Amino acid sequence: MKRYPDYAHPSPLNIKSLLLRPRYWSPEQRIHYRGDYSHTYAEFFKRVAQLAHLLDRLGVKPGDAIGVLDWDSHRYFELFFAVPMCGAVLHTVNIRLSPEQILYTINHAEDVVLFVHDDFQALIEKMRPSLTSVRSIVRLCDPGAAQPADSYEPRLAAESTTYDFPDLDENTVATTFYTTGTTGDPKGVFFTHRQLMLHTLGVGLGLAAFGDPFSFRQDDVYMPLTPMFHVHSWGMPYIATLLGVKQVYPGRYEPERLLRLLLEHRVTVTHGVPTLLHMVITQATNAGVRLDGLKMLVAGSALSRGLCERARECGIQATTAYGMSETCPLLTVSHLKPAQARASADERLGLFTVTGFPLPLVETRILDENGAALPPGPEHVGELVVRGPWLTGGYARNEERSRELWRGGWLHTGDVAYRDEAGYVHLTDRLKDVIKSGGEWVSSLELENLLSQHALVSEVAVVGTKDERWGERPVAFVVLRAGAAAATAGATLREHLQTFVGRGVLQRWAVPDEIRIVAELPKTSVGKLNKRALRATLTTT
Amino acid sequence: MKRYPDYAHPSPLNIKSLLLRPRYWSPEQRIHYRGDYSHTYAEFFKRVAQLAHLLDRLGVKPGDAIGVLDWDSHRYFELFFAVPMCGAVLHTVNIRLSPEQILYTINHAEDVVLFVHDDFQALIEKMRPSLTSVRSIVRLCDPGAAQPADSYEPRLAAESTTYDFPDLDENTVATTFYTTGTTGDPKGVFFTHRQLMLHTLGVGLGLAAFGDPFSFRQDDVYMPLTPMFHVHSWGMPYIATLLGVKQVYPGRYEPERLLRLLLEHRVTVTHGVPTLLHMVITQATNAGVRLDGLKMLVAGSALSRGLCERARECGIQATTAYGMSETCPLLTVSHLKPAQARASADERLGLFTVTGFPLPLVETRILDENGAALPPGPEHVGELVVRGPWLTGGYARNEERSRELWRGGWLHTGDVAYRDEAGYVHLTDRLKDVIKSGGEWVSSLELENLLSQHALVSEVAVVGTKDERWGERPVAFVVLRAGAAAATAGATLREHLQTFVGRGVLQRWAVPDEIRIVAELPKTSVGKLNKRALRATLTTT
Repeated sequence: MKRYPDYAHPSPLNIKSLLLRPRYWSPEQRIHYRGDYSHTYAEFFKRVAQLAHLLDRLGVKPGDAIGVLDWDSHRYFELFFAVPMCGAVLHTVNIRLSPEQILYTINHAEDVVLFVHDDFQALIEKMRPSLTSVRSIVRLCDPGAAQPADSYEPRLAAESTTYDFPDLDENTVATTFYTTGTTGDPKGVFFTHRQLMLHTLGVGLGLAAFGDPFSFRQDDVYMPLTPMFHVHSWGMPYIATLLGVKQVYPGRYEPERLLRLLLEHRVTVTHGVPTLLHMVITQATNAGVRLDGLKMLVAGSALSRGLCERARECGIQATTAYGMSETCPLLTVSHLKPAQARASADERLGLFTVTGFPLPLVETRILDENGAALPPGPEHVGELVVRGPWLTGGYARNEERSRELWRGGWLHTGDVAYRDEAGYVHLTDRLKDVIKSGGEWVSSLELENLLSQHALVSEVAVVGTKDERWGERPVAFVVLRAGAAAATAGATLREHLQTFVGRGVLQRWAVPDEIRIVAELPKTSVGKLNKRALRATLTTT
Repeated sequence: MKRYPDYAHPSPLNIKSLLLRPRYWSPEQRIHYRGDYSHTYAEFFKRVAQLAHLLDRLGVKPGDAIGVLDWDSHRYFELFFAVPMCGAVLHTVNIRLSPEQILYTINHAEDVVLFVHDDFQALIEKMRPSLTSVRSIVRLCDPGAAQPADSYEPRLAAESTTYDFPDLDENTVATTFYTTGTTGDPKGVFFTHRQLMLHTLGVGLGLAAFGDPFSFRQDDVYMPLTPMFHVHSWGMPYIATLLGVKQVYPGRYEPERLLRLLLEHRVTVTHGVPTLLHMVITQATNAGVRLDGLKMLVAGSALSRGLCERARECGIQATTAYGMSETCPLLTVSHLKPAQARASADERLGLFTVTGFPLPLVETRILDENGAALPPGPEHVGELVVRGPWLTGGYARNEERSRELWRGGWLHTGDVAYRDEAGYVHLTDRLKDVIKSGGEWVSSLELENLLSQHALVSEVAVVGTKDERWGERPVAFVVLRAGAAAATAGATLREHLQTFVGRGVLQRWAVPDEIRIVAELPKTSVGKLNKRALRATLTTT
């Protein structure tokens, strides 16, 4: 007789399990949209069931993809659950892409239904003749706006408020979205129920158990500052729901409204790229208000020491996190160890801006050019590769890029980093942004970090330019703070960098020969610095 | 072309992943044994590697079972990791069973190697001729005692301190142990890597994110008061390790040493049956010391309000948890909702002694006698059944009992309970301890709870006795507190119960006709009240 009877996974990891606890824990807790509308979790559960019935009515079958074009909303939040819970695939359409790219992604994902906010109706109408798989479109109309009979609210209202969601194979694909690389068509990343659940559990445990300086627990109030189409708001709405906390979805990111919502709901947990933090700080400073108690995870681009310090002056605790579209996304958070709790405020600031410490179950390695693992130490810089139970299996319909992503059994981040003796990862560059000068690597992130600390500097980006003698040389692009004198700024900032050379922090040859003062910096569709565009500036001028 | 490339689980859920974070987070953190010995996590990682080499040297192959007979120790803790990480099965032998039962479990589990503490050498020597699968025995000798060449420490010392642990299929069985029912041979429960990992993540998240009144986070100090052979100390050593906290293993449970360790290491997190809490309170009271800051999860038997109150008087926050051997074990914790935080101290006490709120991913139902789900409400009492990703698949070599356990796709707890409107589970009895009097169910747990609140009462147990007129009637067995007068106690306690009848808390017919004052109550091998033995007393007298 078999020693251990076969275990048949009677409880596969399914997104619907996230609703088990809040259903009874916090049915009266509220979910807010902008400032116009809110309802309880109890209502949310009913609406998820109604939405599932609507999907059935639209003929959606397991495996079908459903595209969403919306700002951050309670509707989007409902789609986060109902679509995968029915066995369909949620395609969070990146509305910041060009119309051609949006069309490409909808056709490539084979969306059969689109949920489209009024703001994007004209866009979709124009591409309608070119849509190859879409059968139905459901309009998303804001509270207060007209609600045609074929739009979301009237259609939900017609459905039953209970639904018997199936137990799905945990490897069922739950979500997909497209990332734009430097070249070629957008690539479709996808995540299974299992991966999203393990991200929720592993990251959730990391953020709940380790609290200095960032924690996410049941007494927090949550609002994203990362769009829901961008790696499902970093997976944080799933964690927030399991915890049963108050959630605020701010609609389109308008600085004035964002600040009002942060204050009105006393939001304690948010996350976003540095540009968004910058926006919030500026808005708060101009309004003369503080945001004490707000904790923000910052990723997407490096959080500079200067920005972190300005956040602190507003009462915001900014903390670096790191991840990428392919990793669900969170991999590291710059949590402090208990021994570091007593560090000076200045030292702590330095620690918050480190890429971070790997979250539970995340395994990291630094590989040299031959694929061999490097030991810790800032002198051992190489490509960061990772493993963990929530990383994507690859790219939709692209076996070649999938294999390349996972070569050697590790997910290749394309980031250049080293690991210190204490286990923290320090990113120094994107592989494609690396600057090699006289055979040595110059870290653009380090230069940006040092420059950002100067009082003159609002934003900064460093890229490499071809150089006959050295191969490449760094060039800094600087946006000055309001009122700063542009004429002398370049010389002042070069002197500023020289002080770090004098203290042995920076190599002499890493100081850029050129510091360009510019009015603004180009950004990508998700708000990151667009270094490719900056480099293009250099070759065309 | 396939839309989504096959995702091949490059990161199965393996116990070894729990070591990824503490390896760099807290290598200097310490693991203590009794008060005699300690070493760092860094040392622990090396010893786990050495132990793995030792297992190889002993010819252990994947799937082989390894039996351990030891008190709670750093060695046991190492075996918790090294054995499953090699693909073998850790058999935590219940040393409280009778010698015949111990022999049965070792042969039934097919242990090929035994790790045996000096205290159990004589026991094992005696049964050696009857051991059918054991090939090798490794002696476990305490620091300070003689360390023969064939014992644990010298053998570990001879091995390399690094080991390349394999990636295992996550459904590989990791642990097994035996539960004793009321009848028949002990049954072998088993857990896979996946189940232990999901218990660690789900329970870990629940205990880190929900903190009132019990939390387990990175700044805690951990010591078990549940033996390591009993459902792997409720899986808490795995959570403690992921968090990288200081851990204290107290050896054999001797009251004086337990109190000394709790005080010396300022332990903040522990767990155990009510008997152990009772022991700690008594010891602390006698020593005239307080244990402020100690949080204890209490399960195995109901935590009575009286005991919870006496714990509070010592500075201990006792909180009810619930689970069973078959469920890894934790299912519920009596966490308070934010709205309850402002309840009076007295109300809070009542809430801490409720069976609890289901942990994340745990699904519960109450079934009537026909297997239909019952709605919430104290009037809807039935059998509690559960689902969740960390429940055992069944019993070793016992397809019939496995199927019975999982009939209808739900794990049958054998406990009688109801669920209230707020989602909390209230256990009223073990199915086998149910008392049915005049066609109505009498809750033995409720009677015990009410009796325990009286100042005279130290311990109490209520069982049913056959009654011609009513079918069954409850009988209470009471151990009085030191100095209480036995002669009048029965009448006083009956009066005490009548006050609850007067207040409508208790039905008139639920008051026991007989309250027996006894010197002590019989306990099972894991320290729970042995109601079977009590009922036997009634039929033989």
